[in-house]
Amino acid sequence: MNCHFNSQPQEQADAMNFLNEVAERYPHAISFASGRPAEEYFFLEKWLGSIPNFIKSFEKKRAISPGMGGGKLSQYGRTNGVINDLISLQVKQDEMICCEQDQILVTTGCQEALDLCVAAICKNKNDVILVQSPVYIGMIGAAARHDVTIMSFTPLFAEDYIQEFEATILAARDSGRSPKIFYCVPNFDNPTGVVLPLATREKLASICAREKIVIIEDNPYGLFRYEGDAVPPIFSLAGACSVIYCGTYSKTICPTLRVGYLIVPPDLFGSKTLSIKLLDELSRGKSFVSVNTSQISQAIVGAILLDEEGSLYSIIDASKMLYKKKRDLMLAKLQEVFSKISGVSWNKPEGGFFLTLELPFPFLAADAAECAEEYGVIVMPLSFFSLTQYDNSRVRLAFSYASLDDITAGVGRFGSYVSNKMSRM
Amino acid sequence: MNCHFNSQPQEQADAMNFLNEVAERYPHAISFASGRPAEEYFFLEKWLGSIPNFIKSFEKKRAISPGMGGGKLSQYGRTNGVINDLISLQVKQDEMICCEQDQILVTTGCQEALDLCVAAICKNKNDVILVQSPVYIGMIGAAARHDVTIMSFTPLFAEDYIQEFEATILAARDSGRSPKIFYCVPNFDNPTGVVLPLATREKLASICAREKIVIIEDNPYGLFRYEGDAVPPIFSLAGACSVIYCGTYSKTICPTLRVGYLIVPPDLFGSKTLSIKLLDELSRGKSFVSVNTSQISQAIVGAILLDEEGSLYSIIDASKMLYKKKRDLMLAKLQEVFSKISGVSWNKPEGGFFLTLELPFPFLAADAAECAEEYGVIVMPLSFFSLTQYDNSRVRLAFSYASLDDITAGVGRFGSYVSNKMSRM
Repeated sequence: MNCHFNSQPQEQADAMNFLNEVAERYPHAISFASGRPAEEYFFLEKWLGSIPNFIKSFEKKRAISPGMGGGKLSQYGRTNGVINDLISLQVKQDEMICCEQDQILVTTGCQEALDLCVAAICKNKNDVILVQSPVYIGMIGAAARHDVTIMSFTPLFAEDYIQEFEATILAARDSGRSPKIFYCVPNFDNPTGVVLPLATREKLASICAREKIVIIEDNPYGLFRYEGDAVPPIFSLAGACSVIYCGTYSKTICPTLRVGYLIVPPDLFGSKTLSIKLLDELSRGKSFVSVNTSQISQAIVGAILLDEEGSLYSIIDASKMLYKKKRDLMLAKLQEVFSKISGVSWNKPEGGFFLTLELPFPFLAADAAECAEEYGVIVMPLSFFSLTQYDNSRVRLAFSYASLDDITAGVGRFGSYVSNKMSRM
Repeated sequence: MNCHFNSQPQEQADAMNFLNEVAERYPHAISFASGRPAEEYFFLEKWLGSIPNFIKSFEKKRAISPGMGGGKLSQYGRTNGVINDLISLQVKQDEMICCEQDQILVTTGCQEALDLCVAAICKNKNDVILVQSPVYIGMIGAAARHDVTIMSFTPLFAEDYIQEFEATILAARDSGRSPKIFYCVPNFDNPTGVVLPLATREKLASICAREKIVIIEDNPYGLFRYEGDAVPPIFSLAGACSVIYCGTYSKTICPTLRVGYLIVPPDLFGSKTLSIKLLDELSRGKSFVSVNTSQISQAIVGAILLDEEGSLYSIIDASKMLYKKKRDLMLAKLQEVFSKISGVSWNKPEGGFFLTLELPFPFLAADAAECAEEYGVIVMPLSFFSLTQYDNSRVRLAFSYASLDDITAGVGRFGSYVSNKMSRM
């Protein structure tokens, strides 16, 4: 059993700063560090132009006199959001999520949802969050902001996942702690790109229902599947009664909207009252962080969803094809460059924005800086996402943002770095 | 000396919910409860149409190829914001604040600024926040979110303010607590409408510099002065070295933008290093709450500021005249209705959105509900904002949002409530 506490959660944030500095210091380096969406399919002017369509529907739905909707939309708004009905329609069509609109809280990006969940659920000083390490940095940050301890597990093989998870629950309780949240990105995980198999999801759902642990199921990348069949969300599995499902429009539409959402289960731990109480608590928290999510941003999402009859599938079609092309190119180049270097391996995710590559030597922040300076390519050491010491020789390669030419050149440069490093060993 | 701890900070939030429910239950009641800005001068379509102007300037400033700015603006952005130079120009011209743009953090509304300050400054369990009670509910909420105790003082006369403030610092220390923040709204306070005089500001600045207490100077209403001279902000006073100045564009432009800012002092407690460290800490906090403030919203503010050469004075001119007219009407109606009822008094603020009225009998949440149901007018009991038992017979009347006709009718209705109540006493 190998479970760990986050001793210094600030390390990750500092690592992020460090990487931003590296990117600034070597502006001509090719970056595989950033998991940003590609900008080719951002249509800001068109989207802004569609806001009046949303306003018309907003006026109709709320019985606002025609012409007065723009004023109402510019005002303070409902804490829980104004596009909840459209979000409910979208997740039903695209993400196999059935929910009522009043289970939804619209948030200022999904990051706010994580912050609100941590604050509302982990209130006692012994409450802890469980994660698989490596884990999305934003969760480490949210926990740190509320001084909540994270306990992590790192299964060496996928089949050990549930065993390690259960052992971590036990270890937490043995040390006087109370596991309240399990956080995961089950589709094309950031940073690993891995998808949790259905059997693992089913076991997580039933263990967490039994142990009264809230699962935060964060799904920013699920719609970006390039082949294979989608795995049902934990939220929708039979017997799942403790899942908060979180999503964002940052990847499907664009990040600057800062529109995400969370969906509470209909009956938390079997109780509708508990669900209502939880949503009230989250909503109250939101009123003291961002008051309400910008209704201009909500109107852009709303207008697109109205226009697309509640599905994002066709509007992300072009970007999905581009990401697939980039992933294919990166995999082909990795094969070309690294197949002759022993000890280097990588995964082949069926979707998402990232893959990870294992190196035969340690690769940490200082190495990333050296690689950027001397070889002109920036990659993310997995240690930045890690709560343990296990991930000191893996890197995350994001293929979403770099151009096709940069992917070709960048993988080549990284190959030179690795071979030169190995020849000096 | 009368200082108090926040025993149940949630009461206020619950009170707010209660009031929202009252408003929903009696939709035809006239509301003086909401301190919303008037919608007459929201020009959403015009503002959206001005975004391309900001994009041009954004492209130029960042050496982005023409036509590519919209894509960059739609992307994730700089945590600290992209309109800091324009905000620095605006506060210099309009608010007597001199600062460099790198002292500014753009926030998702000013509420986020309060949350970030509490989290960054009150890290130890004995750290407390000092406020005058009654106080803006958002501060109570921000403190509660981070489990930070508030200690409040309530000077019975304005001239006791500093004495009570100092006594509260001593009382905090005597009880083993460490006062880290003093929060105030020095111009047209929410809820009281009061302005802190210059002499009080000077003493606050020097005491807090000496005692190493950060002042959060929150100024949402300062530009809405209808007569008299502006009092300089604490931030700008000689010897002030511990002031974080907070502002918002929710009242001057419109709330749905969710754009506010905080400005750290150039040399916190005399040290530039401390200021830089503080801003870094606030910025890191922000990256784990909202990542960055929507750049669409920032572009709207930016475009207006570009167009107005950095001053909001002329664009708020019409709304100021409207608010002045509303305040004057409310004061005239109060005089007409209440001058013959003994024991009722009210203040006459020179600006802002609110005034307070003292009643000769207790007026709490249940009374507000009764008044809404039976008399069709909704007012805010000051107990909602209070951390003590002192404010059980005052109400806040907001004159910003109600129409002129509603002000006339609403004050009349409230007059009927008060006289009937008194005739039954």
